[in-house]
Amino acid sequence: MKKLAITGGTHGNELTGVYLVKKWKLNPGLLKRSNFETLCLHTNEQSIKEVRRYIDHDLNRSFGSADLRNETLDTHEAKLAKRLNALLGPKGSHTSNVDFIVDLHTTTANMGLSIVVSNDSALTWKAIAYLCQMEPALNVYRWQGDEEGAFVDSMAPHGFAIEVGAVPQGVLRADLFLQTETLIYHVLDFFEKYNDGQRFTFSKTLEIYDHHSLVDYPRDSEGDIMVMVHHERQDKDFDLIKSGDPLFLTFDGEVVLYEGETLCTIFINEAAYYEKGFAMCLARKITFELKE
Amino acid sequence: MKKLAITGGTHGNELTGVYLVKKWKLNPGLLKRSNFETLCLHTNEQSIKEVRRYIDHDLNRSFGSADLRNETLDTHEAKLAKRLNALLGPKGSHTSNVDFIVDLHTTTANMGLSIVVSNDSALTWKAIAYLCQMEPALNVYRWQGDEEGAFVDSMAPHGFAIEVGAVPQGVLRADLFLQTETLIYHVLDFFEKYNDGQRFTFSKTLEIYDHHSLVDYPRDSEGDIMVMVHHERQDKDFDLIKSGDPLFLTFDGEVVLYEGETLCTIFINEAAYYEKGFAMCLARKITFELKE
Repeated sequence: MKKLAITGGTHGNELTGVYLVKKWKLNPGLLKRSNFETLCLHTNEQSIKEVRRYIDHDLNRSFGSADLRNETLDTHEAKLAKRLNALLGPKGSHTSNVDFIVDLHTTTANMGLSIVVSNDSALTWKAIAYLCQMEPALNVYRWQGDEEGAFVDSMAPHGFAIEVGAVPQGVLRADLFLQTETLIYHVLDFFEKYNDGQRFTFSKTLEIYDHHSLVDYPRDSEGDIMVMVHHERQDKDFDLIKSGDPLFLTFDGEVVLYEGETLCTIFINEAAYYEKGFAMCLARKITFELKE
Repeated sequence: MKKLAITGGTHGNELTGVYLVKKWKLNPGLLKRSNFETLCLHTNEQSIKEVRRYIDHDLNRSFGSADLRNETLDTHEAKLAKRLNALLGPKGSHTSNVDFIVDLHTTTANMGLSIVVSNDSALTWKAIAYLCQMEPALNVYRWQGDEEGAFVDSMAPHGFAIEVGAVPQGVLRADLFLQTETLIYHVLDFFEKYNDGQRFTFSKTLEIYDHHSLVDYPRDSEGDIMVMVHHERQDKDFDLIKSGDPLFLTFDGEVVLYEGETLCTIFINEAAYYEKGFAMCLARKITFELKE
């Protein structure tokens, strides 16, 4: 591990990452460790300025390999993705400029302190195992995204995103700011120990949430939602849902029940996912075996 | 009381009002009462479509009398305000098209079910007294706004805004949708009884929150916030704050204490108020005497 990147403001209305990166740019000493370098940057300055998720489309879905190669794409985020990929990637290369990316996000869902990971590298999972040991309340969600392999952290050979919530878009919550900050210091400590050749003693398995499927709101002919997340499901992120549990509520007060196998609900009622076409994610809680 | 207007989507990212109005437009019978007419409308269709608070500037600060008269203002919301004023007002007239306006809002602050009222008419306060009797958890905040007399409900001789929270912008929460809906049915019941000449038996006083002042975040030379709302103050809407209580937290972890008289905090950490220049409102809890 020679170079780590911590990225914030990938979504300009997710303020925890925006202000943590701002803090660290003013106090770079806080990120300094003895045996690797840490880069810290705002990925979407324009969306931060406008306190919007994106200008033209979601930057955190803009790193698909085909899109990065496609020279005809000229939206704000498509051009930005190519510049970031030149700076931090290039994606898929064995000689990328950074080895590991941690991308900072927040969610309106009640997900507490969570990691969203798409990478299956041994180093990524060793880091996650260390974090779970340091922060037992940390949730780990293995997800490729609704568009596969297009996240910011996919530019580097290793990495993941941090998601904290519930916090509204455009709001900074001190509690979640502090929790995210502490988690990043654990990340830095891990890499320092790892580079020092320290042996870790964590267990060989992790309890994680493995992505299963997306559940959309029933919608009318114009694509508008016809229901709300049922109030008994709201805020129940990482909880089990089983056949017969209330899932949605129509505007007329009818309850739509969940039908299907028993799974866990994640990203429930995330503001940004109304337009993406899902009300929540379903995942299976599994025991994940760490590679040596 | 001949005509009531219920308005939603004044802020296009406050979905409770957007979807309640949509529901009632599809089921107008739900608003029908025997002795008055109820109009129900989306005030800012374009901002609803874009799921943004506003297009050019805040519609709910666009009804100052001088602005309504100013023919040179040609922003989206300035023109919209004039059209709405022709439809529902004109403001200040004794023969306005509607007698009472209830404008539906949500907030990212933890305000529960609240009324924000700037109007001192006896009818407005009689309606509020009825609602407090029906919903004892209802909070009443008397505020002229950060720009005086510029709210949507100021077009009619009587009215107020409903604020419910906490809910993120761009999110619909079933619990707050149902609470707001129930409150509106109480409003309708009140006017029906009032028009019927029914005598009401509520007490002559109400415990309300009377606006005192606005508290801004300390900001840097570029106007950016230098602190967060302290985690012990977060979500403490309508609670007392006294000298020495934690108010803000700097990004370096220093606590900024509140100094001043003992008051109540409201609209704590509302997303839309970062740009307006305040972190919360201060109010005094008072016993308000109802006029006969």
